[in-house]
Amino acid sequence: MPGYPVLPEGIAYGGDYNPEQWPEEVWHEDVRLMREAGVNLVSLGIFGWSLLEPEEGVYDFGRLDRIIDLLGSSGIRVDLATPTSSPPTWFRTAHPGSHLVDRAGHVVAGGSRHSFCPSSPEYAAASERIAGRLAARYAGHPAVVMWHVHNEYGWANARCYCETSAEAFRDWLRERHGDVAALNAAWGTTFWGLTYGSFHEVEPPRLAPAGQLTALQLDYARFSVDAHIANFRRERDAIRRFSDLPVTTNFMIPNCEPMDYWRWAGEVDVVSNDHYLDAGRAEGHIELAMAADLTRSVAGGRPWMLMEHSTGAVNWQPRNLAKRPGEMRRNSLAHVARGSDSVLFFQWRASRYGAEKFHSAMLPHAGTDSELWRDVVALGAELRELAPVRGSRVEAEVALVWDWESYWALELEWRPSVDLRFRERVEAYYEALWREHVTVDFVHPAADLSAYRMVVVPSSYLLTEAAGKNLHRHVEAGGHLLVSCFSGIVDENDTIHPGAYPGVLRDVLGLSVEEFHPLPENGTVAVGDDGLTGRIWSERVRLAGARTVRAFTGGPDAGHPAVTRHELGAGTAWYVATALDPGVGPDTDGDLRAILRAALDAAGVSRPRGLPDTLEILRRGRHLFLLNHGDEPVTVPGVSGTGVLDGAEYAGSATVPAGGVTVVEPAPDA
Amino acid sequence: MPGYPVLPEGIAYGGDYNPEQWPEEVWHEDVRLMREAGVNLVSLGIFGWSLLEPEEGVYDFGRLDRIIDLLGSSGIRVDLATPTSSPPTWFRTAHPGSHLVDRAGHVVAGGSRHSFCPSSPEYAAASERIAGRLAARYAGHPAVVMWHVHNEYGWANARCYCETSAEAFRDWLRERHGDVAALNAAWGTTFWGLTYGSFHEVEPPRLAPAGQLTALQLDYARFSVDAHIANFRRERDAIRRFSDLPVTTNFMIPNCEPMDYWRWAGEVDVVSNDHYLDAGRAEGHIELAMAADLTRSVAGGRPWMLMEHSTGAVNWQPRNLAKRPGEMRRNSLAHVARGSDSVLFFQWRASRYGAEKFHSAMLPHAGTDSELWRDVVALGAELRELAPVRGSRVEAEVALVWDWESYWALELEWRPSVDLRFRERVEAYYEALWREHVTVDFVHPAADLSAYRMVVVPSSYLLTEAAGKNLHRHVEAGGHLLVSCFSGIVDENDTIHPGAYPGVLRDVLGLSVEEFHPLPENGTVAVGDDGLTGRIWSERVRLAGARTVRAFTGGPDAGHPAVTRHELGAGTAWYVATALDPGVGPDTDGDLRAILRAALDAAGVSRPRGLPDTLEILRRGRHLFLLNHGDEPVTVPGVSGTGVLDGAEYAGSATVPAGGVTVVEPAPDA
Amino acid sequence: MPGYPVLPEGIAYGGDYNPEQWPEEVWHEDVRLMREAGVNLVSLGIFGWSLLEPEEGVYDFGRLDRIIDLLGSSGIRVDLATPTSSPPTWFRTAHPGSHLVDRAGHVVAGGSRHSFCPSSPEYAAASERIAGRLAARYAGHPAVVMWHVHNEYGWANARCYCETSAEAFRDWLRERHGDVAALNAAWGTTFWGLTYGSFHEVEPPRLAPAGQLTALQLDYARFSVDAHIANFRRERDAIRRFSDLPVTTNFMIPNCEPMDYWRWAGEVDVVSNDHYLDAGRAEGHIELAMAADLTRSVAGGRPWMLMEHSTGAVNWQPRNLAKRPGEMRRNSLAHVARGSDSVLFFQWRASRYGAEKFHSAMLPHAGTDSELWRDVVALGAELRELAPVRGSRVEAEVALVWDWESYWALELEWRPSVDLRFRERVEAYYEALWREHVTVDFVHPAADLSAYRMVVVPSSYLLTEAAGKNLHRHVEAGGHLLVSCFSGIVDENDTIHPGAYPGVLRDVLGLSVEEFHPLPENGTVAVGDDGLTGRIWSERVRLAGARTVRAFTGGPDAGHPAVTRHELGAGTAWYVATALDPGVGPDTDGDLRAILRAALDAAGVSRPRGLPDTLEILRRGRHLFLLNHGDEPVTVPGVSGTGVLDGAEYAGSATVPAGGVTVVEPAPDA
Repeated sequence: MPGYPVLPEGIAYGGDYNPEQWPEEVWHEDVRLMREAGVNLVSLGIFGWSLLEPEEGVYDFGRLDRIIDLLGSSGIRVDLATPTSSPPTWFRTAHPGSHLVDRAGHVVAGGSRHSFCPSSPEYAAASERIAGRLAARYAGHPAVVMWHVHNEYGWANARCYCETSAEAFRDWLRERHGDVAALNAAWGTTFWGLTYGSFHEVEPPRLAPAGQLTALQLDYARFSVDAHIANFRRERDAIRRFSDLPVTTNFMIPNCEPMDYWRWAGEVDVVSNDHYLDAGRAEGHIELAMAADLTRSVAGGRPWMLMEHSTGAVNWQPRNLAKRPGEMRRNSLAHVARGSDSVLFFQWRASRYGAEKFHSAMLPHAGTDSELWRDVVALGAELRELAPVRGSRVEAEVALVWDWESYWALELEWRPSVDLRFRERVEAYYEALWREHVTVDFVHPAADLSAYRMVVVPSSYLLTEAAGKNLHRHVEAGGHLLVSCFSGIVDENDTIHPGAYPGVLRDVLGLSVEEFHPLPENGTVAVGDDGLTGRIWSERVRLAGARTVRAFTGGPDAGHPAVTRHELGAGTAWYVATALDPGVGPDTDGDLRAILRAALDAAGVSRPRGLPDTLEILRRGRHLFLLNHGDEPVTVPGVSGTGVLDGAEYAGSATVPAGGVTVVEPAPDA
Repeated sequence: MPGYPVLPEGIAYGGDYNPEQWPEEVWHEDVRLMREAGVNLVSLGIFGWSLLEPEEGVYDFGRLDRIIDLLGSSGIRVDLATPTSSPPTWFRTAHPGSHLVDRAGHVVAGGSRHSFCPSSPEYAAASERIAGRLAARYAGHPAVVMWHVHNEYGWANARCYCETSAEAFRDWLRERHGDVAALNAAWGTTFWGLTYGSFHEVEPPRLAPAGQLTALQLDYARFSVDAHIANFRRERDAIRRFSDLPVTTNFMIPNCEPMDYWRWAGEVDVVSNDHYLDAGRAEGHIELAMAADLTRSVAGGRPWMLMEHSTGAVNWQPRNLAKRPGEMRRNSLAHVARGSDSVLFFQWRASRYGAEKFHSAMLPHAGTDSELWRDVVALGAELRELAPVRGSRVEAEVALVWDWESYWALELEWRPSVDLRFRERVEAYYEALWREHVTVDFVHPAADLSAYRMVVVPSSYLLTEAAGKNLHRHVEAGGHLLVSCFSGIVDENDTIHPGAYPGVLRDVLGLSVEEFHPLPENGTVAVGDDGLTGRIWSERVRLAGARTVRAFTGGPDAGHPAVTRHELGAGTAWYVATALDPGVGPDTDGDLRAILRAALDAAGVSRPRGLPDTLEILRRGRHLFLLNHGDEPVTVPGVSGTGVLDGAEYAGSATVPAGGVTVVEPAPDA
Repeated sequence: MPGYPVLPEGIAYGGDYNPEQWPEEVWHEDVRLMREAGVNLVSLGIFGWSLLEPEEGVYDFGRLDRIIDLLGSSGIRVDLATPTSSPPTWFRTAHPGSHLVDRAGHVVAGGSRHSFCPSSPEYAAASERIAGRLAARYAGHPAVVMWHVHNEYGWANARCYCETSAEAFRDWLRERHGDVAALNAAWGTTFWGLTYGSFHEVEPPRLAPAGQLTALQLDYARFSVDAHIANFRRERDAIRRFSDLPVTTNFMIPNCEPMDYWRWAGEVDVVSNDHYLDAGRAEGHIELAMAADLTRSVAGGRPWMLMEHSTGAVNWQPRNLAKRPGEMRRNSLAHVARGSDSVLFFQWRASRYGAEKFHSAMLPHAGTDSELWRDVVALGAELRELAPVRGSRVEAEVALVWDWESYWALELEWRPSVDLRFRERVEAYYEALWREHVTVDFVHPAADLSAYRMVVVPSSYLLTEAAGKNLHRHVEAGGHLLVSCFSGIVDENDTIHPGAYPGVLRDVLGLSVEEFHPLPENGTVAVGDDGLTGRIWSERVRLAGARTVRAFTGGPDAGHPAVTRHELGAGTAWYVATALDPGVGPDTDGDLRAILRAALDAAGVSRPRGLPDTLEILRRGRHLFLLNHGDEPVTVPGVSGTGVLDGAEYAGSATVPAGGVTVVEPAPDA
């Protein structure tokens, strides 16, 4: 089985390289500068299909041969891409049946990438062919060390609504449901009299009045992921016929909501990810940490690769803010701290044309006499010092439930409140844990939870019966559980679990919910007597074994439980019946932080105390990473060992400068 | 002629019942609980087409037979629905020509309801057939007491833009206009050179640049209503061949703007209505009262049926707030007070699946051990006490003009100000009258007005010449009239009446308007010297018989009339040349309330004085209804008789608790 | 060569006349009132196609004959229009291939104007035919003095995306680029692998995912302008076969962004323009002045014609505010002051029907007993006094660069910040100059600049290499240059100029830009030590010859240059590295005004000092125009001569009343 380590010598450093945008004389300058920066891996050929196969069945590998040879002879390894995210214009022109169609029936035009239908048989044949050709030609090339299939599956064509897709969907439904009676039962088609007489009558969830079958929409989302996975498998298998090198495709965790990466996880040899900060949000490094933790979790805890991030501004946000001084370094090292064995960028050299010409690069338009270039060179040097980190793992005592199916289901229309969003609630809980310096994994709710002291379920609206039992077993076996409102309401078909809410969690939580009381827009509700404030949601909890930790002290459920705790078997299950904000600052006693601290303490979750909540601290393997996102230096007690980046010897404490990063390797006996 | 009373014993209580969503063993529990709650009528079969006719021409009535027998044997009467609002998927698949097409040309997909073209001949044939089959089978069933054709005509398919619709529209135009020259004259096609050479050249008002012929748009709106009415008539007549029971279809007054219910009014044997509160607005009970009054007015003053409302939250608003304690009861009794002979809900039992599973029901997901169920049972008992109210009428001295054609016309593009909206102005006047404790009817502007002391015309932009004369006659004959700005500007083809504004109202108002002066966004203008504030609109009024009651004291028309009064014949006509807010609180002297009080007093309109403007008070027949929407008890003087709900005897006054309702039957000599 | 003067006797006064909307008896009243108002020119027949050619090939000129004769016999001259902006419905019905298709593929419906494809050969044939017929018939009519081809080219159909347009675009590309390799090179198609194998593979920039080729979009914009110009030329040439009278078409400068009027400028004999105030903005007279200056500049400095403006409110804005007292007069005279030889309105008589019935007119719905009519009559009299102004010119020492191609390019997706907009920046610089009482011309960046002391380049993102050299030569030759941020970044294909930013301006500015630092939404940055505030943008400037005038004192570039000055050859080049607001008030020292004053002084640009910045002052020929937009009278020193409108004699100063206009003809020796 192919896999790690891709680069035996340490952390991979480099990025996407698009030499086809430049005359060949520039290539030599590129290679020289790559070596100056310490680049040891580039992703090559992502957008090269039209050059490699200028006409259907006519190939020209000369240019690619030359650049791979040049890189190889300079000691730079190649992550060789199949170019299938952007089929040639001849393909599009010859195969109108392959065109992407949106929900309203609009045919999506060319002139950009990802404008093909993921269920197109013509696309399947053409992409398999070019992948096989590439593998056959370069499988044995010494510079090539891994395969990069496609690019960002689902970026713009996550779901197609053409008639080819409709027919493929019907086949998928036959496979999943067996017969149409089972489909009708699963989807609840007696509602509004939508019973199907045959699979032939099923349409994709195209533009329709409000109230479209939600189970249809969920199955279409699943089908669409599978269509992309099938495309990936076809290419991967075509490569595998020639090569045993690891095969990956770059995910976009967690910012490509239609892609269920749990479904994807087992398909790749190495999980790789693209991550970009949202420049418009404050403290984007918390979202970055979440993305990295989720990526590591999708990778099953194994090291993974940061396939793309940016040296500075991107080009596709409303306002593309450059990174602040030190931010590229902190971002890069945060990814490494959370399990990445690479720091790769889109892109090596800034483009002069095309849609992404204002996207930052390792080599900016301003050239090498620039702060950015000097930072890139410095980072390369630091990463060489971090080589021993490669392959080591991050351990967590707390797991957060993340389920794309629940994400989709909660975002569908006609829920009790548009304000209660999956992503918002997960981020609130993640942020609170991050500020408490707790390292977390993410888990699927039906996954093995035995490694965790505590499992947190932030508004996981869809929970299967199996998932419910899984959480129940976790608590009975002595685990701790913290569940937030509107979890466990429906099954995989968006059917409400029988009996009072929350069907599959009533027993483990020791309560039921009689009625939901969503709050008016911007409404709040008081919780307890010490200033906690709920937003978005209140509900009428009725205890059945649990006891009240805090009651609502205002709003439609005043006097009724807001936070509860239930001892069950050897464990404890907590419930939060409203949306609490994470709380900012080290000394906050309010909001979600207060509840979480109590639950973490009860669960015996270890974590450092007394540190500012702008300090990021965690261990990867033996190495301790300290990232200071604040404006003041921070002294961290209990730190002894060698500073990997600064060479300092720490004995008892380390002071991390404002905006700085310190990585400490403990003494061997520590 | 079929009609009232549907239920001779009193107020109908119950709701939509969808047994097809549940196994048959649940039906028996349903019936038992219905009896516990006092349910005496359910609407059945609304979404059952695909079960009744699983293949084209193949019928299966077994399930429906069983449930009707079960209900009947339990004493629960059935309002039997034709299932035609949601045709089967086989119908959709077999008849692509029947698919709804939106204004931009998108074919609307299935997987929801109301996705058929209202002009489809295939739909016409299929819906007539199933309606006839149902009528033939169940006409004589003792449990069936009325027919519920379709469901919410126009909910999502009010207007279709397919070629079938286009052809039907051309036929409709031939009927209306006779020849193309008349069409051109009516529509003013010389503007922008849009003269038609033949009816064949007419397109529906599909997606077009701004400035599309407005008369075309108005006629398309009329045609579309008629297409739905034709569908209703076809089903009704198919039923009538077998049954003399009353036939209704549930309207959505006033929240389905494309449906002109004046056009619909004469088609049904009993007017029935669905009404849902907008949870996002404060004091939604005022809008409820308006809806009920408008429904009663559409019913010609006869009793009507509340076919659907909700026990608590709905599912289709952004934030679906549950009702507050007592609110379901107040809502239900307010409908009865304003003329409803029923309190029916969507729905009996909360669904586990489908788009409306979070819609409240009489029997919630939480089951019978819940506040909601206890409230449902209690309401059922109270309604039995109100049986004597059935069939009695509400009388009003004031009429408000409501004209859907004017509604449509004012909402079309390119009016002087987007801020001046029909619905907003009607609601402002309605609210002011409600707060003054004045009971109102709604009238079409060309209707007989002789019953009313005063007629209010809130920004009725479109008024035909006949309507103008009607209002003129009303005043000459001694009636009072209050008109707000931008009324009477255009005729039925959106053509400006000749001469200065407002063409058909100049004489009766004794003034003309030289120029409109819409205000900037959020702009205001002072009116009079005591703090009245106009919004949205100012205009240059020139007196021609009227006299100034208040002048603008700021803005573009400072010093010119803002409110005028004109004595004409035996009556008086008032004019308000800006948009005034209703004014809140019992003692307000400001805004619209101040003007209205003067006009009401001049007209001699009777109403109680000195009551808080959160108390709803009105008579239905002999019964006095007092609904307290405030947070404090209210003592109402001059009340004597028996409390119908509480059994109390009132002599001289009644105190209504906060949030409570008191219904008083006066002593026989009162 | 046909051209000026159209009306030898002075300023043209009148407007669009649509007698087809009225019975013939009204025509006589029209003519009588036109004479009363001093109307001497009307535009006739703009929307008359369906009346002139009621069936394809069948003509009826009787009505048009009669109205032209009537006008001519009354001394009113005719600007005779071809009716081709609104083809007849028979044309639309017979030629479905001519229908406009929008970017998403929606076929645009009829029932409005401008719903045809500009590349349609059927439209080309039909429009050429009707233009020729009109010219043949009326070329010799004494009342006809000029030709008005079409109406507002590109109003709603600027760009069509049908297959006919696609094919025409491919032909256009062959012409522009020669072969597909050149196309690929120009468009940078190696990016994302979008290389074309043949022109046949090119699609218009239809609906696509983000990231569509920007050079494709720019070429499609150019092609679309050329398609409209081809339509114009075809009609113009058809007319020219019969008539030597001047031919115009009414532009919509600068409010029809897809129309590049520099491309149009040489096509017409007389430049004419439609201008409407945006009622929602304060001080709309500044935008009016800008529009007039840009129109004069498009006309090459020659007098031009104001073809349409409004007497009061329009109908197509959200809130159509009427003009304030005196505003129509000030607007009209401002156009004349800036080079117009006409004051024409849409429209003569207000329509009773159609989309524009609430658009103001010279003769309002209220009739002649109205303020508006009295103002119209008074203005006509004043314009007769201004006859000597006809034909004279406006001179400017300062030029502002305006380039529609740069406008388009900057508005495309994926720029560094959505907040940096071409129009916003041009207006900021224009307003600052207007408030400094500096008269400006607009220029294309590659035009001859020798007439100007100073050239201002407000965020001209796209500057060709030739344009860059042009600006360089201007400075070397002793001119002054002021450039604002994000100028000179890309060439005509949206390809970034080589090397550091700003490629083609580095040398002339004596600096480079290392990195852009767009600010967060609503963010600001301090500039200098005296309170200047930048918005939207900051950037890292590196000096290479220039010196710092002001530095950033906050934000991401604190301590680095914000405003610089570079002496080069005999001239000086200034650079402003952020977005400064214009600054309001006569004494402002802040913001853009402070920088501009320094640059104007250095350049020796003459202008009056000490006047309030609400006073508009400029010379046209020998006449001095003083327009007081403020609420107080203003005394202007140094004014001697005869008041043309008031007959006053001014000796040394003139006092202009609040809201008033004074025009002074200096004594002959002045």
